[in-house]
Amino acid sequence: MGKKNDARFWVGFDLGGSKMLAGVLDGAFKVLASKRRKTKATEGQAAGLQRIGDTIQEALDAAGVRADQLGGIGIGSPGPLDLEQGTVVHAPNLGWTDVPVRETLARRFGCAVTLANDVDVGTYGEYRHGAARGARCVLGVFPGTGIGGACIYDGRLLRGRSRSCLEIGHIKVIPGGVRCGCGRYGCLETVASRLAIAAEAAKAVHRGEAPALAALAGSDIARIRSAALAKAIAKGDTVIEDILRRAARAIGRAISDAVNLLAPDVVIIGGGLVEAMPDLFLKECRTTAEAEVMPPFVGSFKIVAAALGDDAVITGAAALAADPDALR
Amino acid sequence: MGKKNDARFWVGFDLGGSKMLAGVLDGAFKVLASKRRKTKATEGQAAGLQRIGDTIQEALDAAGVRADQLGGIGIGSPGPLDLEQGTVVHAPNLGWTDVPVRETLARRFGCAVTLANDVDVGTYGEYRHGAARGARCVLGVFPGTGIGGACIYDGRLLRGRSRSCLEIGHIKVIPGGVRCGCGRYGCLETVASRLAIAAEAAKAVHRGEAPALAALAGSDIARIRSAALAKAIAKGDTVIEDILRRAARAIGRAISDAVNLLAPDVVIIGGGLVEAMPDLFLKECRTTAEAEVMPPFVGSFKIVAAALGDDAVITGAAALAADPDALR
Repeated sequence: MGKKNDARFWVGFDLGGSKMLAGVLDGAFKVLASKRRKTKATEGQAAGLQRIGDTIQEALDAAGVRADQLGGIGIGSPGPLDLEQGTVVHAPNLGWTDVPVRETLARRFGCAVTLANDVDVGTYGEYRHGAARGARCVLGVFPGTGIGGACIYDGRLLRGRSRSCLEIGHIKVIPGGVRCGCGRYGCLETVASRLAIAAEAAKAVHRGEAPALAALAGSDIARIRSAALAKAIAKGDTVIEDILRRAARAIGRAISDAVNLLAPDVVIIGGGLVEAMPDLFLKECRTTAEAEVMPPFVGSFKIVAAALGDDAVITGAAALAADPDALR
Repeated sequence: MGKKNDARFWVGFDLGGSKMLAGVLDGAFKVLASKRRKTKATEGQAAGLQRIGDTIQEALDAAGVRADQLGGIGIGSPGPLDLEQGTVVHAPNLGWTDVPVRETLARRFGCAVTLANDVDVGTYGEYRHGAARGARCVLGVFPGTGIGGACIYDGRLLRGRSRSCLEIGHIKVIPGGVRCGCGRYGCLETVASRLAIAAEAAKAVHRGEAPALAALAGSDIARIRSAALAKAIAKGDTVIEDILRRAARAIGRAISDAVNLLAPDVVIIGGGLVEAMPDLFLKECRTTAEAEVMPPFVGSFKIVAAALGDDAVITGAAALAADPDALR
């Protein structure tokens, strides 16, 4: 970033399946104001694009910043994306296809728009302004409904041959294991995604082994979310704690494979599950990864919790808008 | 490479556990002459360094090139290495420790010396002048006594936080599997390195299930090398063929994990085993990797055999000496 950028403002946008978050950041990437709305993806793509723009405008108004003061807008979106065209090719959680995000927002706000994968953007935020500042090689792992990954190497996001890579949720941890949402078998997500954890927890509720979770959320996996799981553990559901620890150990196993390949100096873990139970995830991931990684790598990396919370994606998206070479 | 480099000559050197190979290349990285010698590591480090220099001098003499015409010397060595200092920190196969390769050769030949991991260098050779020309993201996998890996992304070797990464031989393919040379359990090398294959084959010989291999090599794993395995299969040892196919499928499994993380466009497989049985390895690796990789990646990468054979490391080392930024 040159001096030019320091004099400007940036918008970072987090497009999620249930909520969207727009932030206005200054030249030092401090969040001046942010605005959250429900995504309401079922209202359709045109309404969705309008809603994204309106939420950005509200954040600009709250920050007292005009569109002509913007250096650019960065958007973190679930994929797959066409980074060159700036379109969301397909967002299964939103039900959207071929959404011209860049073109629409560039026309409305009159500035450059950078679109990137949300996990890539969140990891970039942690690298530039959060828990992984100054690292040469950062691995980001975000367990949620799925389990997303990203890698930043020498300041640039690894993209593989085209869009985005680091599909750590599909590392095979249980050969011959159960079917994954991706269509393969035994992927990390089959044992450690929020969905897999919720399904295990629902069985425990059904068996009468998890009274606290039964009272908090019942046996509907849609209601068994991170906060309920954390509360049930705090109230003494040891079976639920075992399920979470086992999932965290599987993530540690996949991290060990990724460390063997990428040799990061920092591994960031984040997302709703980790935020709700940071100590549990940090301990189990660290212990397992150190025990499973090739011995020369023991002690060569640290595993830390993401520091920016909900602001990771808007911060990373804004920083990426200011430094698009990082996504070249 | 600028015009300056085109006017010069380069030396590439391949330091192996049993043999060393020095090559002199022109500005287009065509091998003008090469000289092979036994490494004779047991004679010690000082003799080894002298021998490396003498082999380079013989190759220069054979090519009719003087040391003052050299743009630089590139060395591919087994690791771990100190790339900044240009020293071999420890080469278990050679029994050498803290060998000042760069300093010694720079003094003798009066030019810049670049030292890098041999698998990194071989993959770089294939990327610049072999089977992976023009790829954005190349994964190299070289099954041998161990199983080495490398990745080139946008023209640069991934090094992780420091030296070298892509330890694909230590991807966990059999959780709870047998002990690996690295000290962990169930790594790819425990089922698919030449050592693991030879041990399985020796058992088959001992059981009387592999008469052709028994005649060719007996049951000593030191004698069960790639050429003998290939010949035994050609002569009808179906049990040996099964052992090799199973090993190749395990490599395909590890490739699928690496593809999920790195999204390469080209995967190069090479080394002695692959050279001896290219069709078998290509078929099994391709079939397994395509069946196991996350579905969006199906068809997004090709698996090809290395094209440069024994010249891969000298070509890559020379090319890297001419473009040290690739190893930054």
